[in-house]
Amino acid sequence: MPNLRLAMAQFDPHVGDIARNGEEVVRWTRRAAEGGARVVAFPEMALTGYPVEDLALRASFVDASRAALVELARRLAAEGLGGTAVVLGYLGRSQATARPQNCAAVLHDGQVVTRFAKHFLPNYGVFDEYRWFERGDQLPVLRVDGMDVALAICEDIWQEGGRARAAGEAGAGLLLVVNGSPYERNKDDERLALVRRRAAEAGCPLAYLNMVGGQDELVFDGDSLVVDAAGQVLARAPQFEESLLVVDLELPAASAQDADGTLFSDGLRLVRTELTTGAAGAPQAVASRIAPRLSDEAEIYAALVTGTRAYVRKNGFTSVLIGLSGGIDSALVAAIAVDAIGAENVHCVSMPSRYSSQHSRDDAAELARRTGLHFRTVPIAPMFDAYMDSLGLTGLAEENLQSRLRGTLLMAISNQEGHIVLAPGNKSELAVGYSTLYGDSVGAFGPIKDVYKTLIFRLAGWRNEAAVERGEVPPIPENTILKPPSAELRPDQVDTDSLPDYDLLDTILDAYIEGDQGRDAIVARGFEAAVVDRVVRLVDGAEYKRRQYPPGPKISPKGFGRDRRLPITNGWRRG
Amino acid sequence: MPNLRLAMAQFDPHVGDIARNGEEVVRWTRRAAEGGARVVAFPEMALTGYPVEDLALRASFVDASRAALVELARRLAAEGLGGTAVVLGYLGRSQATARPQNCAAVLHDGQVVTRFAKHFLPNYGVFDEYRWFERGDQLPVLRVDGMDVALAICEDIWQEGGRARAAGEAGAGLLLVVNGSPYERNKDDERLALVRRRAAEAGCPLAYLNMVGGQDELVFDGDSLVVDAAGQVLARAPQFEESLLVVDLELPAASAQDADGTLFSDGLRLVRTELTTGAAGAPQAVASRIAPRLSDEAEIYAALVTGTRAYVRKNGFTSVLIGLSGGIDSALVAAIAVDAIGAENVHCVSMPSRYSSQHSRDDAAELARRTGLHFRTVPIAPMFDAYMDSLGLTGLAEENLQSRLRGTLLMAISNQEGHIVLAPGNKSELAVGYSTLYGDSVGAFGPIKDVYKTLIFRLAGWRNEAAVERGEVPPIPENTILKPPSAELRPDQVDTDSLPDYDLLDTILDAYIEGDQGRDAIVARGFEAAVVDRVVRLVDGAEYKRRQYPPGPKISPKGFGRDRRLPITNGWRRG
Repeated sequence: MPNLRLAMAQFDPHVGDIARNGEEVVRWTRRAAEGGARVVAFPEMALTGYPVEDLALRASFVDASRAALVELARRLAAEGLGGTAVVLGYLGRSQATARPQNCAAVLHDGQVVTRFAKHFLPNYGVFDEYRWFERGDQLPVLRVDGMDVALAICEDIWQEGGRARAAGEAGAGLLLVVNGSPYERNKDDERLALVRRRAAEAGCPLAYLNMVGGQDELVFDGDSLVVDAAGQVLARAPQFEESLLVVDLELPAASAQDADGTLFSDGLRLVRTELTTGAAGAPQAVASRIAPRLSDEAEIYAALVTGTRAYVRKNGFTSVLIGLSGGIDSALVAAIAVDAIGAENVHCVSMPSRYSSQHSRDDAAELARRTGLHFRTVPIAPMFDAYMDSLGLTGLAEENLQSRLRGTLLMAISNQEGHIVLAPGNKSELAVGYSTLYGDSVGAFGPIKDVYKTLIFRLAGWRNEAAVERGEVPPIPENTILKPPSAELRPDQVDTDSLPDYDLLDTILDAYIEGDQGRDAIVARGFEAAVVDRVVRLVDGAEYKRRQYPPGPKISPKGFGRDRRLPITNGWRRG
Repeated sequence: MPNLRLAMAQFDPHVGDIARNGEEVVRWTRRAAEGGARVVAFPEMALTGYPVEDLALRASFVDASRAALVELARRLAAEGLGGTAVVLGYLGRSQATARPQNCAAVLHDGQVVTRFAKHFLPNYGVFDEYRWFERGDQLPVLRVDGMDVALAICEDIWQEGGRARAAGEAGAGLLLVVNGSPYERNKDDERLALVRRRAAEAGCPLAYLNMVGGQDELVFDGDSLVVDAAGQVLARAPQFEESLLVVDLELPAASAQDADGTLFSDGLRLVRTELTTGAAGAPQAVASRIAPRLSDEAEIYAALVTGTRAYVRKNGFTSVLIGLSGGIDSALVAAIAVDAIGAENVHCVSMPSRYSSQHSRDDAAELARRTGLHFRTVPIAPMFDAYMDSLGLTGLAEENLQSRLRGTLLMAISNQEGHIVLAPGNKSELAVGYSTLYGDSVGAFGPIKDVYKTLIFRLAGWRNEAAVERGEVPPIPENTILKPPSAELRPDQVDTDSLPDYDLLDTILDAYIEGDQGRDAIVARGFEAAVVDRVVRLVDGAEYKRRQYPPGPKISPKGFGRDRRLPITNGWRRG
């Protein structure tokens, strides 16, 4: 059988930065060509980055993407890379309606030899693709050096039928799918099962390429893989790392003779493009690489680090500022920041009040000592006294004041020194509104905003254990993990004064938020009605706070942000 | 010809509060029945409120809506109102797929006699209806006392074809369209033209019912109207006010005999429901009422008042707090608040710093005197000194500090006294980031966030003139309107130190934001390239601030909020 050497560039495109992404395409194509690949693939909309959101509605941006695509084909040829077939996602436009499309093209020999648009458009969760795109109805098949490679984009294989089935009907030798598929917990397991099912449906191997990196609230975990028609994994790229996954596939010689325009499943019209790569073939087979999977905790932690690093760097910052309370949330955020951008770029400030315990101050200093991040202490008593003298606050107003003085202090240092502030709020807190707007919610990015408190504990423990395994000092002081959580805004306060135990709280929150279960359904599962009522009421009443919270990496099936769109003004009282 | 007395209840449903909305349906139906109406119509999804956003994905909420519908039919009959045909929007569910649907039903004689779902689903701007709903494919025709009334929902007439054309094909005597159509500037003109076009297409009168009130960032302006087939306006309800619009229509006796299931345009299947209302007919014709239109400024101002009132009241608050600087933005917000909820519920605080001019303090006090709102002064010097002593800030950090101290002060009073804070930011500021995050951006609601600065001036002038015309004291001090805008965060600062003149700025912003024009297209219109580049760069760079800004009433074709969804992390540098 003929041999197809396929390279998949699992890289990190930057949204909007077409010039940079084009350079990356050239760089990865060179590596692929030097490795003897006949075809090199890039992720969904790699040329523009993904998702571009309403940039898709700006004609000038669509024009720039289309022009860059043509220019890139020329450039690749000019650099001697024209022989390799390049499958590249970009932002295109429908010829019929002039509406934007989520497209991919094949570049070869200085030309854009074919273009097609995504067939199935996702319009749920964080996706709004009916808003932006018109669907495509082609079944693109690339006959490359005599082998048929059917092409598809992301959602095309997440819905039943469509290009996977059509590829099978058209007798393709390989189905190549380019993706921008955001990370969620356990997405890798779901992805593998899906890819196997579609390979069986297409009756041929399936190569699945995903991007890596972060874009606002989304994280892309890579995890590109190739399975054969029987579902066996032939190659798999690492999670969260840029990588060129190269695989040698023994594909049958193409024999299908259907004319262009032949209709297959879902009304897909065949468009075949024939090309000869001139690749030297594959003198020596590449070793099949199957990267090991990360554990659940390692994977989630890597997602948080990836998302945080991407947000900071892609927005042109080099350093971050964190208010370090001695508690577990800010400690975990600091550990993530250190892993994301290096301790030398992480600035922390302890801002004790009269209610701050000595162990909190000690724990904050201890974390700084262990990790080597920059640390300073600024007590808030003088500011607190100035407000109290003017306003004479009591109760919640006094508690919130302390938090807001810290927020203002962080922003002042941020403005003065140029660091961006990371917010330490976790998902349990944000869910029930156990945070102070313009206080501890202050920040450009919230690294753990989609992480429930019980998972915070697991991640902190895992991070320390991972350090021990590597012979390093665990970053997070044990006392920070072991002591009962407290906001320390009044004497002897602990979280459980105001909230149910976190195990219980998180279970109810998961049912209400991720599960979209109503109050009655949750009570029917055996939870105390009064507790469920209270949690549901707290969640509904905190929507206004969440709306003003900074973005942070989505790791759950339903993150706060574009994933969950509930009205603030909401009279529904039964959950 | 038989006579159809139609009543349209232009009322203000509350999202999520099914019980309250149901009571309102009974109340308005009673009024309609007492007035001899054969049919009374309620707006799109009036039973659940609109838009319900992701509440549509919660099965318990859909169940509650469907159960309330059935119960309401019984209740109306039990109260002696079963004779009147009630056309009522609600949240339903597809029998085939169990997906939610944007539905309307007809209640009569204790029963839900027919149900149908919206055919065309809007999925642009603020609308995400492909996310939530499955479309319906019925052509519902109500044969009421021998006259054929075709029914449709909102977007059904905003797209070509569909139910308007099908109503014409089916020979309907009237097309009744129930809407939840959010306000935008000049929407009333656009709406009238559209309704006329569709009436011509349907070849019969068209009755268009819209809701009033506010829901988070949306305002509904009412403006319900009835036109005949020739486009003549037969009746029109007032803008922004609840109203029962009653009209007597001379409709032909129904003669069409098409069987149920007959297919019309767009694959719409006829479903005819026959009923006899038992209404006494129309002993005395009702006078046709055509409410006068508001001027552009009056209309926009009414939208801001309506949105602000709705947000405050529907969220269970009675009073608001505003930082009054003496400048025009906070003055206009105060005037809006006074008109929305009464001066006795408006609390203002002047928070002068060393850079605050005497005229600013005087102007703030003068506004308070003129309107009768509650007013106090709290200087920020002690808090400022406490921070400066600890941190030694300079430049922008020092400027922002003053703004954040005010934000913290407002939130402290808010927490202590229970008012919600209104943010004074305007659209020009938010666009270019000329505001301080957690400073002047603090608030639960931003009444003028969608109003460009040049329009702020027009509205302030209009509000004062309107007062004079009514023989009242103009609320806004003339000096506030006449003096050059300044943030007063450093000596002798004025906005034009940092920004182009507002006339120029707003023109460029309108092209870039509302027009989605790229940098080159704007420059091609004759604007200086350096200015356009600067504005575009400022707008793109301020996305992170806008994401954390409170909601406020949308009055433009593209408000910041769900209407404009751009990435924060965005490397596109050419606009």
